[in-house]
Amino acid sequence: MNYRMIVYLLGWVLNVQSLCLLLPVGVGIFYGEAQWKAFAVTALFSLMLGLLLTLKKPKRTSFYTKEGFVTVAMSWIMLSLFGAVPFVLTHEIPSYIDAVFEMASGYSTTGASILRNVEALSQCALFWRSFSHWIGGMGVLVFLLMIVPLTGGNMMQLMKAESPGPSVEKLVPRVRQTAVILYSIYLTMTIVEIVLLMAGGMPWFDSITTAFGTAGTGGFAVKNLSIGFYHSYYLQGVVTVFMILFGVNFSIYYLLLSKQFKKALKSEELRWYLAIIAFSIICITWNIKQKFYPGSWFEAFHNAAFSVSSVISTTGFAIVDFSRWPQVSKFVLFLLMFIGASAGSTGGGIKVSRIILLIKSSLREIIGIVHPRGVHLVKMDKKRVGDDVIKGTTAYFSLLILIYAASVLIVSFDEFDMTTSMTAVAATLNNIGPGLELVGPSGNYASFSVLSKLVLIFDMLAGRLELFPILVLLSPQTWKGSLGAIKRRFSWNRKSM
Amino acid sequence: MNYRMIVYLLGWVLNVQSLCLLLPVGVGIFYGEAQWKAFAVTALFSLMLGLLLTLKKPKRTSFYTKEGFVTVAMSWIMLSLFGAVPFVLTHEIPSYIDAVFEMASGYSTTGASILRNVEALSQCALFWRSFSHWIGGMGVLVFLLMIVPLTGGNMMQLMKAESPGPSVEKLVPRVRQTAVILYSIYLTMTIVEIVLLMAGGMPWFDSITTAFGTAGTGGFAVKNLSIGFYHSYYLQGVVTVFMILFGVNFSIYYLLLSKQFKKALKSEELRWYLAIIAFSIICITWNIKQKFYPGSWFEAFHNAAFSVSSVISTTGFAIVDFSRWPQVSKFVLFLLMFIGASAGSTGGGIKVSRIILLIKSSLREIIGIVHPRGVHLVKMDKKRVGDDVIKGTTAYFSLLILIYAASVLIVSFDEFDMTTSMTAVAATLNNIGPGLELVGPSGNYASFSVLSKLVLIFDMLAGRLELFPILVLLSPQTWKGSLGAIKRRFSWNRKSM
Repeated sequence: MNYRMIVYLLGWVLNVQSLCLLLPVGVGIFYGEAQWKAFAVTALFSLMLGLLLTLKKPKRTSFYTKEGFVTVAMSWIMLSLFGAVPFVLTHEIPSYIDAVFEMASGYSTTGASILRNVEALSQCALFWRSFSHWIGGMGVLVFLLMIVPLTGGNMMQLMKAESPGPSVEKLVPRVRQTAVILYSIYLTMTIVEIVLLMAGGMPWFDSITTAFGTAGTGGFAVKNLSIGFYHSYYLQGVVTVFMILFGVNFSIYYLLLSKQFKKALKSEELRWYLAIIAFSIICITWNIKQKFYPGSWFEAFHNAAFSVSSVISTTGFAIVDFSRWPQVSKFVLFLLMFIGASAGSTGGGIKVSRIILLIKSSLREIIGIVHPRGVHLVKMDKKRVGDDVIKGTTAYFSLLILIYAASVLIVSFDEFDMTTSMTAVAATLNNIGPGLELVGPSGNYASFSVLSKLVLIFDMLAGRLELFPILVLLSPQTWKGSLGAIKRRFSWNRKSM
Repeated sequence: MNYRMIVYLLGWVLNVQSLCLLLPVGVGIFYGEAQWKAFAVTALFSLMLGLLLTLKKPKRTSFYTKEGFVTVAMSWIMLSLFGAVPFVLTHEIPSYIDAVFEMASGYSTTGASILRNVEALSQCALFWRSFSHWIGGMGVLVFLLMIVPLTGGNMMQLMKAESPGPSVEKLVPRVRQTAVILYSIYLTMTIVEIVLLMAGGMPWFDSITTAFGTAGTGGFAVKNLSIGFYHSYYLQGVVTVFMILFGVNFSIYYLLLSKQFKKALKSEELRWYLAIIAFSIICITWNIKQKFYPGSWFEAFHNAAFSVSSVISTTGFAIVDFSRWPQVSKFVLFLLMFIGASAGSTGGGIKVSRIILLIKSSLREIIGIVHPRGVHLVKMDKKRVGDDVIKGTTAYFSLLILIYAASVLIVSFDEFDMTTSMTAVAATLNNIGPGLELVGPSGNYASFSVLSKLVLIFDMLAGRLELFPILVLLSPQTWKGSLGAIKRRFSWNRKSM
């Protein structure tokens, strides 16, 4: 285990966070709010610690998968712990656990909130919440890869650990270049959404924060009614479209930019993703039309489209309380929570490509019974999918269901109804935000016990990082022999001094 | 596809069923009920058709996995369709769909009922319902293997398709011998339970039917209050113990009989099975004590033990309406529904050994990240588990969750609350019987729509046969080229005539 390198990278993560904290400082000063000081103090403290840890660059930069996963897991935990401090300092969220919940929810792009009244927050606090979505959406380590001069080590491991999907590929041979391309697309699309929202009359502050929430598929809004506050088909329509867009694999956009249109549009995952969205919208529109919007097919379609896009992209914005919808609609949304967005997007959930792989590899077993002598390959986009990817996918699925079941078990000690417990865990583990019933779009997570909140914080981070980094961090196997290693390192230090 | 052989076996299944139908005929005559005639007519019709199909033994008896799966699936569907006829003839269940539901529930050892008042049924009908559990528990095809002189073909395929568990093994080299041993253990244990129940003062009719329901882990009772009718700790205790016993892998009993005690007790699945039961009982006892049984730890323990054993063994008997218990207890029971009993038992669900395999193979992925160069094997009872078994297990798990989700989606069109829909499907797909809320121990499945009932019938049969036989039957791949084959067969017939 290359401890020096891990510590060095964690230091850089702190430096980046202190840089990010300057934005809410600016917003606070602009609005003449006293709260900016809390953000400034945290930024300063974060920077001091960060600089201390990055003072000396490690000589040995070699880096393996294990280290990559541990670094990523520790970074995200640290980000949540540090990012929560300003809320406590300003007394806007007095309980530290609640503040950590809110920040873990922000960074993991979940959007689940313990706040009963969002509008009571200062502008700089609102900005910070939404901005954490934007950082968390694409990833902090991926950001680091752009700016920190890391050479030698196999930095692809960091990207693998942080980016969603069953198999992460570089767009171009160099990792840094890939990170730059991803962030450029991300930034451009965010700016386009801001402009379109402002063009529709949304105030600039709301436009920026809403775009942050959409881009990271987070879902924190600056109004209690979420996007329902803006009574405009245009504005809600823009958000709908961008939620879908940010749930698409970013490599598709890269293909489009490099004019490989055919290849982009032939992507199996993209087709399934759009097909699931279309099917769900039709199903829900039909289901809610009669009871809720007897007069207007358009109204039913509009609300169905927004909610479906919000849930499948794991954003979690709301314009209507879908918790009151009929059972079919609610169950469709519950399923979408697990399906999630595309691999390589900013969205959470199992991811459409994993669902396709699960179905294909299961069907292969059936075909294997029918034709026992044939060789049956699983293909995706006409390419063979390796057995290791399939193993990883089925393991991911099993672990997700196991963690889901264990989490609901613990959360149910709070004695809320089963739908609340089950959807609260589904909505955090898959990074959506709102669930159904008590945690529905008009509810919040405030009334859960501390134990439940800790479980949900774990679920949000584990979900965003796709389980393995957090599980590797917690695995005793990872730390086996670490004591010996620490001893060795210290004796080496003595010798070198 | 060896169609002649499939048809021949289906004929034998009908013969066996007509034989089985003689039992309720006897019961009806004994009690002087007019309903016996309906059973006699069905038996006669079944026998005539059966004899017709078994008149000529096929020359070619070779038999592959595909044929085995198709035969098993068709047999069970046929059994449900024919077994339901007497209920309609006697007007005790006027709707044929309802009658098929009841019989599919019986044969699949689910125990879910559409009857609002069980006690209104005639004795022969009650006997038939319970006896179908006993037949379904060990399997009809396994029974056939004992009595039908089948030689040449690879009859192990039939056993594989019908017996539960990730990998089915013969106890002794010969398949028929294995079937005889299994049925002997089954019969002996059933008789022991009958004797113990009668010793506790239960009427002989109730003792026999209750033992049938326990042995097959079915759950149909002859009283509306299920086992709650018998206010006796002893009787309920006997049922509790036998529910646990029938959820154990029968090969354990064979090991005990062959005096391999150490090997039997070292079985990983057995240990996990008992550990899960113990953990669940402790958890629920503690959870229900305060609110429901403030006076008595014993009362809480007794009810917890019965309900846990009933659900994990997928029997579905009840002595108390656990639907009213607190959330933790309800969710533990919901989880147990999916875990299910042991492989090679008469119980349903995913099976403990599959859960162990899923956990072990998932952990292997984590260890693979920590030690990427090592070779990590999955072991069970100190023996290496083949990759094909693991692939089959993960495929089974994925398919189960997919079928579960699709079923709940269709059932939710009935607009019952989410817990009802979700537990109704869980309780049928895993062959338990009662779920929670409307389908809880004091509810029934009568109010579902015809579409939902069809879905639940599919789920019960698919669950009992562990998905693959039914899926192979429905797979277009299975029937590819069948038209051609049928044509060839007919032309061959013409030539041979």
